[in-house]
Amino acid sequence: MCQLLGMNCNVPTDICFSFTGFQARGGATDVHTDGWGIAFFEERGARLFLDPQPSSASPIAELVRHYPIRSKNVVAHIRKATQGAIGLENTHPFMRELWGRYWIFAHNGNLVDFSPPFDGSTLPVGCTDSERAFCWMLQELRRRFGSTPPGDEALFSAIHALTLEIARHGEFNFLLSNGQWLLAHASTRLAYIVRQAPFAQAHLKDQDVTVDFNQVTKPEDRVAVIATIPLTDNELWTLMPAGSLWWFAEGDAVRSLETVPGPEKKPAG
Amino acid sequence: MCQLLGMNCNVPTDICFSFTGFQARGGATDVHTDGWGIAFFEERGARLFLDPQPSSASPIAELVRHYPIRSKNVVAHIRKATQGAIGLENTHPFMRELWGRYWIFAHNGNLVDFSPPFDGSTLPVGCTDSERAFCWMLQELRRRFGSTPPGDEALFSAIHALTLEIARHGEFNFLLSNGQWLLAHASTRLAYIVRQAPFAQAHLKDQDVTVDFNQVTKPEDRVAVIATIPLTDNELWTLMPAGSLWWFAEGDAVRSLETVPGPEKKPAG
Repeated sequence: MCQLLGMNCNVPTDICFSFTGFQARGGATDVHTDGWGIAFFEERGARLFLDPQPSSASPIAELVRHYPIRSKNVVAHIRKATQGAIGLENTHPFMRELWGRYWIFAHNGNLVDFSPPFDGSTLPVGCTDSERAFCWMLQELRRRFGSTPPGDEALFSAIHALTLEIARHGEFNFLLSNGQWLLAHASTRLAYIVRQAPFAQAHLKDQDVTVDFNQVTKPEDRVAVIATIPLTDNELWTLMPAGSLWWFAEGDAVRSLETVPGPEKKPAG
Repeated sequence: MCQLLGMNCNVPTDICFSFTGFQARGGATDVHTDGWGIAFFEERGARLFLDPQPSSASPIAELVRHYPIRSKNVVAHIRKATQGAIGLENTHPFMRELWGRYWIFAHNGNLVDFSPPFDGSTLPVGCTDSERAFCWMLQELRRRFGSTPPGDEALFSAIHALTLEIARHGEFNFLLSNGQWLLAHASTRLAYIVRQAPFAQAHLKDQDVTVDFNQVTKPEDRVAVIATIPLTDNELWTLMPAGSLWWFAEGDAVRSLETVPGPEKKPAG
């Protein structure tokens, strides 16, 4: 399995603090040693750093940790391979273009017998279940909406329907962003926190590092951080119910839908 | 205008030496200060480092210079903006997927009145003439060959035809690779060198750095380096005739075609 880290903000923000804890899980405090990657949106552009090395030993991860790239949407992943060999082509996040924007996707889980038909419009390059799921989602969105991107509600509804289909094949925690919003699906495990005024101190679980957000923020800043396992040990993270799809925009959770309806599930909203 | 750097090899090779000279042209020894980028193929995977900062002052460029990433196909670019603001979305190289492979493209030149019709299959994200040219080439290749990639000769012929069309709009030096080969178009200015046994010493033009390739190669290694302006001052570079398209594979120039036919042009092969 793998671990996910996402960030969605209302102003460009660096992820150095959260990444410091996350990076340690890639071989130091945890076992995810089969590569890692992180994508930063800056306006319409995207920067994607990928390394098939463990993040705890990667010079590129060291750079990312110390180089404050400010972004409103970030998606990161550390990998413990389930399907697909260790290699750059199987390293998350994956990037494609749709409707004149880059889309970034990272997955934690395992999809069994998931081999959807591809029409050639968006094809996987590597051989992971994750990249197949991403490419199939984009193909189906393109098929449904043609060359005109839909509004947010129609898009969320369409991605919700596709998520239900894919999730029938197994564990499908994912983060997806096109630079305007960030979607998070908790198939089994995902948590988030929204940091906003009044800001406080936060202390990492995986490294003895504390930050005082009062010192580095303005009162109007708002930042949502999403992670497989909470990154700090002195803040209250919201555990997303298993089977819930969340839409983050401008640093807050603005919509959610259940993906595993049933009487035993709690509402996700 | 901009500068291009490409490398095509028969074994995965690092580009640290050539990049050291090239990096200096992004603000130190030359004026290309509007961003830079480099893409490395590793098998089917691709790593793309982009920075809208000048390469001579970029921490990411420092990393690339010191971190030996071994690749058979590399495309790099330093930018002096002509069309499109300075920003990540307008920073070369650009990446898209076609036929289950990543394609990487970088351009030096200026295309005037080049606004081709897009069918939505591959769209630009930024607003440069360069990205429009790349996306239109991929769209037309997809349209011509459908979902099945053609053989090398048919592909080269098709890209040659598309290059002729685009080059009618202005200066169109470019590098293009899908990880299996590297194509170089000299619209006005491009040079290459093939390094193979017996290897010798090389000295950079832009920095006082010398490397003895005998010490870092095996006898069977072969490396083609392509650059807007030769990077070394003690080696014999081949100046590509203006109006010639070159196919590099396994570290050598294996095919070429004229792109500006006419009695005053020298044959390109």
